[in-house]
Amino acid sequence: MTGTQITKVTVTPIAFPDPPLLNAVGVHQPWALRTIVEVHTGDGFVGLGESYGDAAHLELLRRAAAEIVGLDPFGLAELRQRIAGAIGTVDAADQHGLTGASSQAKTLLRVYSPFEVAFLDLQGQMIGRPVYDLLGGKVRDSVPFSAYLFYKWGAHPGAEPDEWGEALDPDGVVAQARAMISRYGFGSIKLKGGVFHPDQEIEAIQALRDAFGEYPLRLDPNCNWSVGTSVKVAEKTDGLLEYLEDPTASIPGMAEVAAQASMPLATNMCVVEFGHLPEAFATRAVGVVLSDHHYWGGLTLSMHLATVCQTWGVGVSMHSNSHLGISLAAMTHLGAAMPQLSYAADTHTPWQLGVDVLERPLIFVDGSVPVPDAPGLGVTLDRDALARLHENYVSCGITERDDTGYMRSIEPSYQARTPRW
Amino acid sequence: MTGTQITKVTVTPIAFPDPPLLNAVGVHQPWALRTIVEVHTGDGFVGLGESYGDAAHLELLRRAAAEIVGLDPFGLAELRQRIAGAIGTVDAADQHGLTGASSQAKTLLRVYSPFEVAFLDLQGQMIGRPVYDLLGGKVRDSVPFSAYLFYKWGAHPGAEPDEWGEALDPDGVVAQARAMISRYGFGSIKLKGGVFHPDQEIEAIQALRDAFGEYPLRLDPNCNWSVGTSVKVAEKTDGLLEYLEDPTASIPGMAEVAAQASMPLATNMCVVEFGHLPEAFATRAVGVVLSDHHYWGGLTLSMHLATVCQTWGVGVSMHSNSHLGISLAAMTHLGAAMPQLSYAADTHTPWQLGVDVLERPLIFVDGSVPVPDAPGLGVTLDRDALARLHENYVSCGITERDDTGYMRSIEPSYQARTPRW
Repeated sequence: MTGTQITKVTVTPIAFPDPPLLNAVGVHQPWALRTIVEVHTGDGFVGLGESYGDAAHLELLRRAAAEIVGLDPFGLAELRQRIAGAIGTVDAADQHGLTGASSQAKTLLRVYSPFEVAFLDLQGQMIGRPVYDLLGGKVRDSVPFSAYLFYKWGAHPGAEPDEWGEALDPDGVVAQARAMISRYGFGSIKLKGGVFHPDQEIEAIQALRDAFGEYPLRLDPNCNWSVGTSVKVAEKTDGLLEYLEDPTASIPGMAEVAAQASMPLATNMCVVEFGHLPEAFATRAVGVVLSDHHYWGGLTLSMHLATVCQTWGVGVSMHSNSHLGISLAAMTHLGAAMPQLSYAADTHTPWQLGVDVLERPLIFVDGSVPVPDAPGLGVTLDRDALARLHENYVSCGITERDDTGYMRSIEPSYQARTPRW
Repeated sequence: MTGTQITKVTVTPIAFPDPPLLNAVGVHQPWALRTIVEVHTGDGFVGLGESYGDAAHLELLRRAAAEIVGLDPFGLAELRQRIAGAIGTVDAADQHGLTGASSQAKTLLRVYSPFEVAFLDLQGQMIGRPVYDLLGGKVRDSVPFSAYLFYKWGAHPGAEPDEWGEALDPDGVVAQARAMISRYGFGSIKLKGGVFHPDQEIEAIQALRDAFGEYPLRLDPNCNWSVGTSVKVAEKTDGLLEYLEDPTASIPGMAEVAAQASMPLATNMCVVEFGHLPEAFATRAVGVVLSDHHYWGGLTLSMHLATVCQTWGVGVSMHSNSHLGISLAAMTHLGAAMPQLSYAADTHTPWQLGVDVLERPLIFVDGSVPVPDAPGLGVTLDRDALARLHENYVSCGITERDDTGYMRSIEPSYQARTPRW
C-alpha cells in the first residue's frame, strides 16, 4: 500500500442541540443528528465528509466505510462501485420525508456523498488545491446564502429558551428575520411554512415584504398544501415571492400548480434524483431545482445536475437540512464552482447556535461565505468537539429524526397529514 | 506571475495526408487539417490540445490563445470566460456540415475544447496524475474503438495508391474490414455510407454480416436520406445493425424515423450541443448520442453530457473526424472515465497512415487503446513532426476542408444534395 492510499475510515455519529423549529410534519427534536466521516491516507491526510445521522443511514455509512481502505483518493468511480457493492440494493428511506421519496438509486448516492466529499478534500490537500479547483475553478469569491426563518417555540418544553426566541406570528417572524439578518447580513429570506393556515403564512410573507422592502422572499410549506390551495396561495403571493418552494406533493401536482402560478416553483422534494428530471422537465413542474449534494451524490454530480438544469432552462440553488461546518464548506466550494447557481442557497447554520465540529468554522460576511482558498475543503476537524458531540449522540437517546413523534409527545392530538390544507 | 501560471500559448495549424475517403458530401482532400495547441507554464510543463484546422476556426483559436497567458491551469471556468470574451458572439460554421449545425454556443465550446484538454493535461502533469483521475477516475483499463470503414478510391487522382486500396463495392468493403481488423483487432464495424444508393450500402452491410458473424455493425450516411428512405433502410437492415447513425437530417426527421426503426438511431449531426437535447429527448429522436469533445466543450462537459444521456435513458459513444494522437489520447482518457460509454467509439486513426505529432502514439490492442497511466494525457509532442506537418499546411494550399469542391474538381458534374436519396 502506498502513502496516498486510504488506510482508515472513521464514521462518527453526533448530536447537537436543535431549537424547536416547526414544520409541516411536526417540530425539530432537541437534538439534531449527523454523521462525520473521516478518511485517512497513509501519508497523514484526513478528508472530511458530513451526512445524515439516522440509524439506517448510519449503518449503511459504516458498511461503506469498511470497503474503502486501500482505495486511491482520486478513484471516485471505484469508490462508488465499492459502495454500491457494500450496500447492495437497499432502499433506506428517512422517516421524516422532508427530502422527498427514497429509492435504491438515491440511497446509493446519499451514502456515497460524504465519502465523495472526503475524497475531494483529500485530493485537494494532496495537490495543494482548494476543492473548487477540482470542480472546474472558482466563478465567485463568496457564496450567497439566505436567511432561513422558521416558526418556532421559545424553548423546548421544560428547557431554557434558546437565543432566537419565539416566532409564531408575523411579528415574531419579522423579529427573527431582523435578528438573523443583523447577525449574518443575509440578502434574501426564506420562511419555512406548512405550519399554520396558509393565510397566516401569507400574512407573515407580507409582513416580511413590508419590513424588508426589496429582499427576495420565499415560502416553503413542504408539500403541505393541496393543488387547489397552492394555486390560491400563488395568486395571493403574486409579486411577493422570488419562488414558491414545494407547495404540493408529486411532479404532476407541482406541474398543475406551476401552470397557474406567476412565480417559479422550486423543489427539493419532488425532484430528488436524476431519474425524476425527465418527467419534471417535460411537464414544466419546476422552475428551480434545489440541489443537495448530500443526496445528489456529492459535489461532482451536483455540477452535472447544474448542467442539466441549465440545458432545460431551469434554475439551480441549494437545499439545506440541519448541518454543521463540513457541509457548509462543501456547499461553499460547490457554490464557488457552479456557474449556474441562480439564487442564494439555504443554510441552517444560524440554528446551530454556534456549535460545530470545526476548529475555525467558515464565517458569513454580508450574507455570503467567503470561499476558502486553502487546500481541500479548507477546514480542520476539532477532535474535542467531535468527541463531545458524539457523547451527546450516545446520551441523547435519539437515533432517528422524528419530528412528528416528538410533536405528538408534546401535543398528543397532533396528526401529520399531507396535505393539511 | 508564479511558476504554475500559463506563460505562453502556441497555436500551430498542420496538414497530414488523407486518403480519398468518400462520403455524403464528396471526398476527402489529399490533406486533412488540424490545429495543435500547446499551453506552457512558467515551470516548464506543456499541455497539449488538438482541434480543427479550418481557417475561421484557426483564427478564433488564435484570438483565444492571446487571452490565456497568466491563467492558472486549474481555472477552467475563467478560461471559458476569457475565451467567450475573446471571440465574442461569433458563429463560425464549418463548411462541410458533417458535424451538424453551428451556433454561437457551439462555436464557443469548439474553441474552448482544445484549451480545456491542454489545461487538464497540465493539471495532470502538475500533480502527477493521469487525466482520467481529473474526470472521476478510471472505470476501464482500455477503451474500445470500432473499425471505421469508408468507400474509397484506390488513390487520389494522379497520386500513388495508398496502403488501404480501393473499396467501392461489398467485396472492397469486406476486404478493407479484414485488413483493418487484422491490423487493429477492432471488435465492431462502422461503414460510412451516404455515398451509393442505399441498396448498395445495405448489400455491403450484409456482406460484412456474412463475413464477420456477430460483430456489431453500424451504417452512417450523414443525413443523406429522406425520412422515407431511412425508414425503408431501417426495415431492410432490421437485425443487422446495432445502431443506424444519422440516416436523415434534423431532430424531427430523426424522430419520425426512430418511431418506425427497430434499431436505435445514433447522432453526431442533429444533436451537437446541449441546447438540442431537450427537443431530441422529448421526441425520442435518438437512442445514442455520439459525443465529441471537440465540439461539446472538452472532457469535463462530455462527462456531464454522459450523465444527461443516462438520465434520459439514451446511450453514449464517441464520434470522430480525421484526427491525430492528441485527440486519441483525450478520447481515451474520456472513455476511461465515462461509466456510460455504451458502444465502441469511432476513430479515424487507421486513416492517418502512421502519421502523428507524438513521440510515442498510443497503440491499439485487440481493438482497444490501453489507457495510459502517466501524468496528464500521457503523450509527448514530437516537435520535428509538428514542424514537418506545419510545413505541409503552409505548402498544401488548403485552408478549409471542402470535400464537395474537391470532388467537383475531379467530377465536375458532382452535386452535393441533401438528402440525395
